Amino acid sequence: MTREDAVRLDEADPLAGLRGRFLLPDGVIYLLGNSLGALPRDAPAAFERVVREEWGGRLIDGWNAGWYAQPVELGNRLARLVGASAGEIVVADTTSVNLMKVVHAALTTGREHGRTRIGYEAGLFPTDIYVTTSVAAALGCEAIALQIDDGALPGDLPSDLAAVLASHVDYRSGRLLDMTRLTAQLHAQDTLAIWDLSHSVGALPVRLDGCDVDYAVGCTYKYLNAGPGAPAFVYVRDRLLAKTRVLPAGWFGHKTPFAMAPEFAPADDIRRLLVGTHPVIASAGLEASLDVFDDAMSDGADLGELRAKSLALSDLFLDVLAASGHAVEVVTPAAHDQRGSQLSLRHPSAYPIVRNLIDRGVVGDFREPDVLRFGFAPLYTRYVDAYDAVTTLVDVLATRTYQNPRYATRHAVT
Amino acid sequence: MTREDAVRLDEADPLAGLRGRFLLPDGVIYLLGNSLGALPRDAPAAFERVVREEWGGRLIDGWNAGWYAQPVELGNRLARLVGASAGEIVVADTTSVNLMKVVHAALTTGREHGRTRIGYEAGLFPTDIYVTTSVAAALGCEAIALQIDDGALPGDLPSDLAAVLASHVDYRSGRLLDMTRLTAQLHAQDTLAIWDLSHSVGALPVRLDGCDVDYAVGCTYKYLNAGPGAPAFVYVRDRLLAKTRVLPAGWFGHKTPFAMAPEFAPADDIRRLLVGTHPVIASAGLEASLDVFDDAMSDGADLGELRAKSLALSDLFLDVLAASGHAVEVVTPAAHDQRGSQLSLRHPSAYPIVRNLIDRGVVGDFREPDVLRFGFAPLYTRYVDAYDAVTTLVDVLATRTYQNPRYATRHAVT
Repeated sequence: MTREDAVRLDEADPLAGLRGRFLLPDGVIYLLGNSLGALPRDAPAAFERVVREEWGGRLIDGWNAGWYAQPVELGNRLARLVGASAGEIVVADTTSVNLMKVVHAALTTGREHGRTRIGYEAGLFPTDIYVTTSVAAALGCEAIALQIDDGALPGDLPSDLAAVLASHVDYRSGRLLDMTRLTAQLHAQDTLAIWDLSHSVGALPVRLDGCDVDYAVGCTYKYLNAGPGAPAFVYVRDRLLAKTRVLPAGWFGHKTPFAMAPEFAPADDIRRLLVGTHPVIASAGLEASLDVFDDAMSDGADLGELRAKSLALSDLFLDVLAASGHAVEVVTPAAHDQRGSQLSLRHPSAYPIVRNLIDRGVVGDFREPDVLRFGFAPLYTRYVDAYDAVTTLVDVLATRTYQNPRYATRHAVT
Repeated sequence: MTREDAVRLDEADPLAGLRGRFLLPDGVIYLLGNSLGALPRDAPAAFERVVREEWGGRLIDGWNAGWYAQPVELGNRLARLVGASAGEIVVADTTSVNLMKVVHAALTTGREHGRTRIGYEAGLFPTDIYVTTSVAAALGCEAIALQIDDGALPGDLPSDLAAVLASHVDYRSGRLLDMTRLTAQLHAQDTLAIWDLSHSVGALPVRLDGCDVDYAVGCTYKYLNAGPGAPAFVYVRDRLLAKTRVLPAGWFGHKTPFAMAPEFAPADDIRRLLVGTHPVIASAGLEASLDVFDDAMSDGADLGELRAKSLALSDLFLDVLAASGHAVEVVTPAAHDQRGSQLSLRHPSAYPIVRNLIDRGVVGDFREPDVLRFGFAPLYTRYVDAYDAVTTLVDVLATRTYQNPRYATRHAVT
């Protein structure tokens, strides 16, 4: 594999034109679309429109003219990306708050049948653990950690589990779980399956209905490119909707919010997953981003083509790294069916290596205690980006420039 | 009072220049700043900057460059408007979700001392009732409605109340409560005071620390003009912070979020009130709006001047209405110390009257079952607006044009 090979791959790539739909800073190879997606080219105009024309121009009448329907309409657009049906998803609140809603629903339903515990995959993104544990505690229930080894839950799963929560792709390792298999394993003992799609949605095909998933949540500011702090989504399998009770109950989840009734009566449809006023302006980024996905999938396809490119990008990276002879442990599974859209490497100097790479224009990130992460967002990452990134990494490892003391100073946040 | 009198009042108004800081549609008298505030002139550029420069230009590094500190920094800016201290407020999530956090905190602390109930003012905005009731139920506690008559809580308040929630200004009637008096009444029996400031913040002086309030929440898209669905805020009195436990626990409320620890350890500071990733882009509207307040209060004053203008506007409206001889019931108290920044009128044909007024360029709204509301946002409402609005109302009442059948058709939302 030479750089010319990578350039030729880009030239032959039918998806190459999608990169032009994003505004990317010059001189940067951005491999963190798994953390914060890039800016869609049309997003600034979408924000300008909602701010100036809808808010400034219509004022309160914006609610009649479209804002009210937005959480459901965005959910219906998203449905296609995750194999859901219309009316199974709303867009609002944060992933954490959405997770609270479904954990509450699963536990309050479950305990009616003596199921007072909820399991979560032990290596889950911490906020998922915090939410699950705190909501379970509030309800007098219990949350327990479960190991997932070789892609399977323990065979002796406790029988009092109302639900189990797992992440489709692990944020730290990049491991992809088999949603069909795990969901079926849970259903075999009448335990609900809750999936966090934050690290898979927009990067690979997800088949929520096809896998018979019960509840799911996910983030829109990673591979979905909706912008920092963009609203998250929540999915409820249609057959579960009627018994899904959300915490907290809020007026936007009411059957008739503007009747201003003192008693709460949940909406019959997916709006019951709403709580407060949804973020109208913040949703403009998702509108613009979904337009790009619509074009990428205009032939009626799912995300299969994007998925194939993402795997080809990470394969290229791994091949060049392996050929370099540097002994860097690759945490992410080699098998395609167990690999998300990121690569995680382990190195004792992971943090200074990441800083050194950023100095050289290659943006990945670090996760405690010793992991380097590189995301391959297939909408805008080129083969030549993967090639340049890995050869820069190989050079940094070979020359040990990361040992420069200035790369040791920790940033406040990332 | 003639129209010329109103024009002269505007000419003499030292605050008149602030209207130029907003972009208002032509031909509309907008009296719904109590529901959705107007667009600050500098807000479109603020959104453009965060979208294009911060997100598009910095990508993930935006988190190091300022986004992480945003909820606290915005809270510190807001503190001045509500008489709070730095470190007592964060901006994130919706009002409903923020209310859940403090209701949970009050009840979990209270029940350690046998206080297993929470009271709420019976006429509260419905979502506040839904949140309070649902969180109490989740915790095995109880929420009870309390009447507030003549500005006071019942003298025989139950002794097992962990807290009482009330709205500073009532959304329906426009009644302003005496925060000092009610908070003291609650503290006299060791009950916490939780205030919803949604309908007062930005329109009149609020003295949270001065009144020794325990918890407060509020909305930023009404008198604070931060845009539809803009993030809300939550206030915690400093002495209560250490024992405030938030539901759900989430990573942005963790002491060290990026350590990715499996155990939740709340931040020592006001960040413990955070849960998920806050809405970075949506916060730009609040930045732009607070700039206007900074200028309006540049002499170090509180909101006293704006408050005086708002009362003068509603007085003008009431005077002209009274002089017209039309028998419309005014729901809002006449006494200044019991009146918020809106007027609520009662009429059996409230809905068609509102629609008729909108057709004639006067935007107020309707609340079930028979209330017309007119808000007087003092930053951008002119005396001549109040005059033209009330004379249009008087004409509509006199000519009964609201009886035209087309005004009877209900809009979906408002």
